[in-house]
Amino acid sequence: MTSPEAREEAVLEAVRKRREQVNDAIPDELPIQRPERLYEASRYLLDAGGKRLRPAVLLTTAEALADVEPMSRDYRSFPPVAGDAASTIDVMAAAVSVEVIQSFTLIHDDIMDDDDLRRGVPAVHKEYDLETAILAGDTLYSKAFEIMLETGAEPDRVVEALGVLARTCTEICEGQSLDVTFEEREDVSPEEYLEMVEQKTAVLYAASACLPAVLLGADDETIDALYGYGLDIGRAFQIQDDVLDLTVPSEKLGKQRGSDLVENKQTLITVHAREHGLDVEDLVDTTDVDAVTESEIDDAVAELETAGSISYANETARDLVRQGKGRLDVLPDNEACAQLCDLADYLIERGY
Amino acid sequence: MTSPEAREEAVLEAVRKRREQVNDAIPDELPIQRPERLYEASRYLLDAGGKRLRPAVLLTTAEALADVEPMSRDYRSFPPVAGDAASTIDVMAAAVSVEVIQSFTLIHDDIMDDDDLRRGVPAVHKEYDLETAILAGDTLYSKAFEIMLETGAEPDRVVEALGVLARTCTEICEGQSLDVTFEEREDVSPEEYLEMVEQKTAVLYAASACLPAVLLGADDETIDALYGYGLDIGRAFQIQDDVLDLTVPSEKLGKQRGSDLVENKQTLITVHAREHGLDVEDLVDTTDVDAVTESEIDDAVAELETAGSISYANETARDLVRQGKGRLDVLPDNEACAQLCDLADYLIERGY
Repeated sequence: MTSPEAREEAVLEAVRKRREQVNDAIPDELPIQRPERLYEASRYLLDAGGKRLRPAVLLTTAEALADVEPMSRDYRSFPPVAGDAASTIDVMAAAVSVEVIQSFTLIHDDIMDDDDLRRGVPAVHKEYDLETAILAGDTLYSKAFEIMLETGAEPDRVVEALGVLARTCTEICEGQSLDVTFEEREDVSPEEYLEMVEQKTAVLYAASACLPAVLLGADDETIDALYGYGLDIGRAFQIQDDVLDLTVPSEKLGKQRGSDLVENKQTLITVHAREHGLDVEDLVDTTDVDAVTESEIDDAVAELETAGSISYANETARDLVRQGKGRLDVLPDNEACAQLCDLADYLIERGY
Repeated sequence: MTSPEAREEAVLEAVRKRREQVNDAIPDELPIQRPERLYEASRYLLDAGGKRLRPAVLLTTAEALADVEPMSRDYRSFPPVAGDAASTIDVMAAAVSVEVIQSFTLIHDDIMDDDDLRRGVPAVHKEYDLETAILAGDTLYSKAFEIMLETGAEPDRVVEALGVLARTCTEICEGQSLDVTFEEREDVSPEEYLEMVEQKTAVLYAASACLPAVLLGADDETIDALYGYGLDIGRAFQIQDDVLDLTVPSEKLGKQRGSDLVENKQTLITVHAREHGLDVEDLVDTTDVDAVTESEIDDAVAELETAGSISYANETARDLVRQGKGRLDVLPDNEACAQLCDLADYLIERGY
C-alpha cells in the first residue's frame, strides 16, 4: 500500500510526463503555416500552457485497455484491443484532437465572457483581435476533426470516433448556451446546474475516456462505462474549478480570484447558497473584475463557507469521483487503471 | 437544340425544385430543440432564404454519377455507383451538411465584418447578440459533421467524406483570414485575390461537387475532376457576386449595394482597377454603409467600367465556367450532366 502523498506525487509525475509528450506532438499536428497570423493565433493558448488533463485521461485509458505498462509504448503506434485489425493506432493524434477542441472552446468562451486573461496571458481576442480569435477557434475546430482522422484505426471505428467528437462539440455548445441563459436567472437548481456542467465541460472528459476504447476496438459495455467515468470526473473537475476560483490566489490562478462571483456566474456554490437564503448577487458590490478588492472576495467566501456552500460543492465532487472510479471495473486490473483512479482523485485534490 | 432562354428557365426550375426539397430536409436534420434559443439562432439564416446552390450542385452531381433522370429518385435513398455496397445512400444529408457549413460561415463572417443585414434580415449577431451568434455558428459546425455521418455510405467512404468536409472548413478559415489581411494591403494581385477566393468560397463548391462521388463510390479520377469543376465554378460564382454587389439594387440584394467598395473590401474588380491606376480607396468618400448615397455608388461604378475592371471580372468568370464545364467529361453524357453545365452558366448569368 502506497501512501496518499506518494500516490499524489506519482500521479503528478505521470501527468507531467504525458504533458511533455503531448506538448511535443502539438506542433507536429498543428504546424504554423500560411496564413501565419491565423495559425499563430490558433496555437497561442495551446502554447501558453495547460495541464493537458484530457489527453492524460485519454492516453492512460488507452494503456489500461491495451493492458500495457504506463508510458512503456509509443503513443503513435498503439496495439488495438480487438486483435482483428492489422495496423497500430495513433492514440496521440486522438489526444491532441481533444486538446485542440478544448482550446477552441476557451478562445470562443473568452470572447463571449469578454475575459481578459487566460493561463496568465491575454485572451486571444485581446492579444490579437475579435476577427482573428473567432477564426482561430474555427480553424482549431476543423483541425481537430482532421487530426482525429489520422489515427489509422479501422474505418468503422474512425466513423464512430468522429461521431463522438461531433456530438461532444454540439453538447459543449448547448451547455455554454445554457450557462449564458443561467446568468440571467436567479432560480437555477443544483440539478440544472449539474446538467449544464455535464454538457459544457464533462462531455469532453467523457469523450477523452471513451475514444481510446472506440479506436482500439473495445466492446460497447466498456465504451459506455468509460464514457460514464469521464462524465463523472468531468463534473467533479468543473465543481473543483469553481471552488478554486474562490480560494486560489489570483497570481496562481492566472486571472482574478472570485471573478465568477463578480460576474454573477452561476456555480454549484452560488446555486446552493441561494437555496439557503443568501443574497448571492450582492455578495460582491462591483461587477467589474478590475475594481474588486481581495478583502471583498474574502468576505464573500466567508459568507459562502458559513452557509455550507463550499463544503456542499466539495462533497458533491467527492461523490462524483467515487462513482466514476467505480465504473472502471470494466478495465483490466493494471497500473494504468490505478492511475485513472488517481487522476480522478487529483482532479478534486489539486490546488490549482 | 433548346434556346438559351428555355435552358435558363429550365435550370431555374430545377434549382427551385431542389431548393424546396432541401428546405424540407433542413428542419428534419436540424430540429429546434433545447436550448431553443440556440437552435432558433442556428436556424435563423437557413430559414431566411438562400438559393441552395451548393446543395443543387451536390444533388445534381449525384444524379449524373448514378446516371438517373434529374429528380426521378428519392435523394434519401440513392443507388451507389460502385455496386459493391448493399445499402442506399442519403445524399440529401450530405447536401444539408454542406448548406449548414455555408450558414455557419455566414454567421461568423457577418460578425467579423460587422455587417447588419444578410438575406434581407438582420445578421444573427444583430437579431440576437454576439454570444449567441458565435455559439450558433459553432453549433452548426458540429451539426454539419453529425449530419454528414448519417448518409449510410460505407465506412471508408464516410471517412473520406469527413476528410473532405474538415479540410474544406480549414481552407475556408484560411481564405477568410487572407481576406481580412487583404483589407489592409494595397498591392494584392489578381492571382493572390483568386487564390483567396478559391480558399474562402470555391472549396465549398468543390466539396459539393466531389462529395457525391466520394459517397457513392466513384473512382479517384472522377472525384478529382468534380472537385476541379467545383473550384472553377465556385471562383466564378464569387467574382459574379462581387459584380452583383455593384450592379444590383439594394432591395434585391438584401443589403446596401456597393458595400464592398464602401468597406474597402478587395474584389477582383478593385484589384484590377488599382493595377490600372485607379485610386480605389477614394472611389467612395465614406466608409459607413449607412451614409453612402446611390449616386456616389453610380459614379464609382462608372469609373470602374471606364477602367475595364467590370468587363475583366466578367471575362475571368466566363473563362472559369468554360474550364469547369470542360472537366465534366468524366461523367456519363446524361441530362443531369447537362444541368451541371447549365448551373455553371447560371452562376455567372444570374441577376442576383
